[in-house]
Amino acid sequence: MKTNKPLILITNDDGISAPGLRALISVMAELGEIVVVAPDAPQSAMGHAITTNSTLYLNKISLEGDSFTEYSCSGTPVDCVKLAVNEILKRKPDLCVSGVNHGSNSSINVIYSGTMSAAVEAGIEGIPAIGFSLLDYDWNANFEPIKTFIKKIVLEVLENGLPQGVVLNVNFPKLEEKDIKGIRICRQAKAFWAEKFDKRKTPQGRDYYWLAGEFINQDKGEDTDEWALENNYISVVPVQFDLTAHHAIQNLNTRNWNE
Amino acid sequence: MKTNKPLILITNDDGISAPGLRALISVMAELGEIVVVAPDAPQSAMGHAITTNSTLYLNKISLEGDSFTEYSCSGTPVDCVKLAVNEILKRKPDLCVSGVNHGSNSSINVIYSGTMSAAVEAGIEGIPAIGFSLLDYDWNANFEPIKTFIKKIVLEVLENGLPQGVVLNVNFPKLEEKDIKGIRICRQAKAFWAEKFDKRKTPQGRDYYWLAGEFINQDKGEDTDEWALENNYISVVPVQFDLTAHHAIQNLNTRNWNE
Repeated sequence: MKTNKPLILITNDDGISAPGLRALISVMAELGEIVVVAPDAPQSAMGHAITTNSTLYLNKISLEGDSFTEYSCSGTPVDCVKLAVNEILKRKPDLCVSGVNHGSNSSINVIYSGTMSAAVEAGIEGIPAIGFSLLDYDWNANFEPIKTFIKKIVLEVLENGLPQGVVLNVNFPKLEEKDIKGIRICRQAKAFWAEKFDKRKTPQGRDYYWLAGEFINQDKGEDTDEWALENNYISVVPVQFDLTAHHAIQNLNTRNWNE
Repeated sequence: MKTNKPLILITNDDGISAPGLRALISVMAELGEIVVVAPDAPQSAMGHAITTNSTLYLNKISLEGDSFTEYSCSGTPVDCVKLAVNEILKRKPDLCVSGVNHGSNSSINVIYSGTMSAAVEAGIEGIPAIGFSLLDYDWNANFEPIKTFIKKIVLEVLENGLPQGVVLNVNFPKLEEKDIKGIRICRQAKAFWAEKFDKRKTPQGRDYYWLAGEFINQDKGEDTDEWALENNYISVVPVQFDLTAHHAIQNLNTRNWNE
């Protein structure tokens, strides 16, 4: 019975035509009824951007009789989730999966990532959600080695759900399937990008900048996502959207703000 | 001596010409040496977006002899902070302030906010940072009543710093100064936007959507930012960028991911 199948919303930030999205669709099609709503163009590094001051368009791509429903959207990854839930899906989905991103979203990258922001948005709306990323920025990256693991993770989440207010950030090392050691629950490593801007001149002589930079991991903890990935594990970080630094409240309450 | 003054980076997401930015500049000019780097156009709701696939421009607006240095930037609020720190400032600033935003960034709004993402970016780079927002979306909002409080908060942070990995999300109720009861340290309320899209047709007959929606606060806690603001207090939420849901790690480790 089609109605007994879980309803799975699929999105990404590399855009509707990205091979990573196609790989995710191929795995999800085995597990449930799927609806794809993805940006009509690449939206990497869009973070949790939403379109409030402009219009949004949806284009239905799938045809009558296709095995799943597919839309492209003119907005950001977060817009895709909002439009899918409010305008496309007939009921709240059982799961939202985002990716597979072409490139890492481990450690601090989670905060810049459109892939993860789409998953977080689903989480805010009460939908269990997972973002998947492969440590290979190549458009022609090989997603075959990770398909079995994606399926395993999704089945576990479909069966047992996720803790309230938590979505998963899953990163895969760039390895053959046989060389992947397994799945590890991790915390986000303390890392940052040491920015360098490449300063250039336009043909008209005006200065412009390209963002470049070097990833610096300061965190040697073996419970981090960076450690797991460097040691051939798949990292799974539970991510929350209550950003309160609860541990800092005591310190701040000792100060004299009102004097 | 000019060199003894704290160096303060000022940015926002409403753009270089926003009255909220001008209000913040007027307060900061009394407290330190200031450098302004703000988007050349409004960038609200940009979240933690960065420009990785395109070029960035900086335009110096201040002239030789002006009392402070000011640039507009073609990128997002986070781009502004990165460019300021790497290309404009001669040393790491002592403080980064962002805003004053025209409109609330309390509770879940923190995650969509360009104002707060700029502050978070500064925090990631190890700079004490504060985002300020006034609960008034009007371009002609009155920022006079909150200036004394901004000064008080900034002086406290300049003197005593902030806990590591923490930036402040400060929201002001829309009130006369005499009606503001004081400053409260809070946690982020559990709230969300119940989206509604306004579906319209272009003059050519194509469907498009405007994001609308209703803010729903589910959290009655008197320690929340929403409670503080409704009760005429200024809310100060410590915000972190380690997004790990540490409390969920035990639960996830009880599961059979590798079987």
